[in-house]
Amino acid sequence: MKVVKFGGSSLADGVQLTKVLNIIKADPDRKIVVVSAPGKRFATDQKITDLLIKLAGQVRIGSDYQQTLAVVKERYDAIIQQLSLGTKAVELIDRNFAQLLHSEYASFSEQLDAFKASGEDNNAQLVALFFEQSGLPAKYISPKEAGLYVTDEPGHAQILSETYDNLARLKDTSKCIIFPGFFGVTKNGKKVTFARGGSDITGAVLANGVHADLYENFTDVDAIYAADPRYVTKPQQIQHLTYREMRELSYSGFSVFHHEAIRPAIMANIPIEVKNTNNPTAPGTLITKEKPLDANDVTGVAASHGFESIYISKYLMNDEVGFGSTALEVMAQRGISVEHMPTGIDEMSLVVKEKQINDSQEEELLAELKERLQADDVHRQTNLTLIMVVGEKMATTIGTAAKAMTALANEGIGIRLFNQSSSGISIMFALEEKDEKKAIQALYETFFNEKK
Amino acid sequence: MKVVKFGGSSLADGVQLTKVLNIIKADPDRKIVVVSAPGKRFATDQKITDLLIKLAGQVRIGSDYQQTLAVVKERYDAIIQQLSLGTKAVELIDRNFAQLLHSEYASFSEQLDAFKASGEDNNAQLVALFFEQSGLPAKYISPKEAGLYVTDEPGHAQILSETYDNLARLKDTSKCIIFPGFFGVTKNGKKVTFARGGSDITGAVLANGVHADLYENFTDVDAIYAADPRYVTKPQQIQHLTYREMRELSYSGFSVFHHEAIRPAIMANIPIEVKNTNNPTAPGTLITKEKPLDANDVTGVAASHGFESIYISKYLMNDEVGFGSTALEVMAQRGISVEHMPTGIDEMSLVVKEKQINDSQEEELLAELKERLQADDVHRQTNLTLIMVVGEKMATTIGTAAKAMTALANEGIGIRLFNQSSSGISIMFALEEKDEKKAIQALYETFFNEKK
Repeated sequence: MKVVKFGGSSLADGVQLTKVLNIIKADPDRKIVVVSAPGKRFATDQKITDLLIKLAGQVRIGSDYQQTLAVVKERYDAIIQQLSLGTKAVELIDRNFAQLLHSEYASFSEQLDAFKASGEDNNAQLVALFFEQSGLPAKYISPKEAGLYVTDEPGHAQILSETYDNLARLKDTSKCIIFPGFFGVTKNGKKVTFARGGSDITGAVLANGVHADLYENFTDVDAIYAADPRYVTKPQQIQHLTYREMRELSYSGFSVFHHEAIRPAIMANIPIEVKNTNNPTAPGTLITKEKPLDANDVTGVAASHGFESIYISKYLMNDEVGFGSTALEVMAQRGISVEHMPTGIDEMSLVVKEKQINDSQEEELLAELKERLQADDVHRQTNLTLIMVVGEKMATTIGTAAKAMTALANEGIGIRLFNQSSSGISIMFALEEKDEKKAIQALYETFFNEKK
Repeated sequence: MKVVKFGGSSLADGVQLTKVLNIIKADPDRKIVVVSAPGKRFATDQKITDLLIKLAGQVRIGSDYQQTLAVVKERYDAIIQQLSLGTKAVELIDRNFAQLLHSEYASFSEQLDAFKASGEDNNAQLVALFFEQSGLPAKYISPKEAGLYVTDEPGHAQILSETYDNLARLKDTSKCIIFPGFFGVTKNGKKVTFARGGSDITGAVLANGVHADLYENFTDVDAIYAADPRYVTKPQQIQHLTYREMRELSYSGFSVFHHEAIRPAIMANIPIEVKNTNNPTAPGTLITKEKPLDANDVTGVAASHGFESIYISKYLMNDEVGFGSTALEVMAQRGISVEHMPTGIDEMSLVVKEKQINDSQEEELLAELKERLQADDVHRQTNLTLIMVVGEKMATTIGTAAKAMTALANEGIGIRLFNQSSSGISIMFALEEKDEKKAIQALYETFFNEKK
């Protein structure tokens, strides 16, 4: 059994939904379909979810919301017309909105989550109608019916542990289940949405619950690439990634989903496949716990900017027990996550995401570090990019780091910091942001083009 | 004015003391001489300090100490005879020992420190006699007379801040001052010894107090070498080091003095010169805060073994605020100093000196880390060597790290961890201990031999 999730662009209109139908028809193992709300049809189009947020606000403050409501409904009406779903579909959507608009909500956050959730919920119901009408036995199931229970944290719902047992019951379905992504329900029946990557979470939770053989994640790219396509022309597609590799690469920003979203699938060791709704026969990228050794030492290179480094030096620091602990404690007390902490003998650097520290806090933070640590010098270096070179095979290969550094040196790129941890599957370099593109190009050339 | 310190091997017998006299005579700026106790004359010889520790123990428990006392006195008698210092010198030593043996001590640690301090104290008095007799106006000054005040921490005396002002008065001396190293006195007049590098500390404190133009440290090597002479045949001598470079190299174990010992001189920005008593016209190594740019990118390479790495991994660790802080707190609570902490996305390694953790504690420590951090995996990798590649010029040169890594890769040496901090003047590699010698040789070849 496969759990299949489609992103918003895969469900934006009737043309896309027809592709989805054909994908499900092509493989009878695709028994659970998780749908997002209709996404953008063209670059300047509005996402349904954004419109629903606007609508909720207008309803809350009592201003005229009719025009916004009309725009949302038109999106569904367009799909209904394109797919000839008929008046019962129009009536269904009307009924759902009437109920949404006239329900009582204890708070705005409760109301907002209900409005946001309706984007996926209506879409799932339309998809079920469409599949049935097309001769594919299908059934809409709501999170409430399935028992997808979550905590009452609007916008940040956490899965309750009993959910997995509840979802296991879906395993025996004969019909194709159409399930709305992005939200669950509290034990009191309130709809509460997830954080980032919401529909990916729903898919991963379902895959875990039914012990799926595969979690297919359909989006609008053929695969995960070995380098950012904005920097490298036609980069290689990665055919097989391990969870660890994906995590290291997704950290650097060009991944197709947020790593935390697919945690439930990873925890159950379920293979994940990234595929393209618009090109479903392309091989895609398979992500598993382990994989056979690649031909290439390096699986991918990635960059993430917006970092800064806080440099701390103190003579004889290295002999002080608890120095690093105190430094990290200061950061943790301010809720600042430290990404890396490269150390010299009497110095250390704390690498953090720049946006975690606003400029007014910055001086105070530096002063506190200097005071608490009795440091000789504390200063920051901003506008850093972290470059990741990632590959399972690197752990058992000698010379990859040397090659990477030589590639950067040959381009005249200075390395501010670097770091490799024990598992050896990745190396991190910190560079100035202005060198990011050049660095990715040089590394890609070295590890992917020179061998051919 | 120069403060000049001589190590034990420079003062082991009359021949050595004559060299010391000539060195002082050769430069009238050498006004303050800090002397150690007589060191070994040959490989299997005993150090006076070790004999004095034995003597103190025997006296304390009331066993027969006459033979030990005789051996110690013979060492002084030999010097007195070789230098023809005459009966007044013999009487001086006799009187000092009689007083040492028959004083009242409140504790054994007080007694032990008094006995240990007598090694330097007697030697300084003999050196003063010898200089005077040789026509060089000289004067023995005790820590008590000079006001070199310390805390009452036997074996770990800390300098009291008023000491520096007291010592400043020695600046106006016309005679050459002979000062015993290794100890100071409490405000109550108790002699208390320093920790490791004791006589180096005395010299550094004096250099600071009198604002010396130079602190000369005479020992038995011509200079500090660019690599360990046990691994590299006739390595280059380093002519000029910065304090920072020295610190990074001394950490790796082939330095001539313990870095903490010379801290008082560094704090006052006093140049330090390492010279050879047996070859005083050799250029030596000058150590200053800053230096002109070297021709070479790398100043020295060094290795230090006996390290282990504790590897910790946890999925999504990187998103947790306070993870590293908790890990370091566990270590600090056990009094374990963490040397380096290289990090991957969801993993970190804590690099520590192996001897800090005994095997019985090890399992408990790993279990505590796993428990406190809720980590997926915690394990250790032992028998690691840390290799340091050090050079001020590296901070402004691109490609040094690449060269170093290529040199290691070409020898088939796997790098377990690596790390470079912001100042950029050093790179650390962790390797298996079995590769230590080969790594130093390969790095030395690359950075020192290939260019010639």
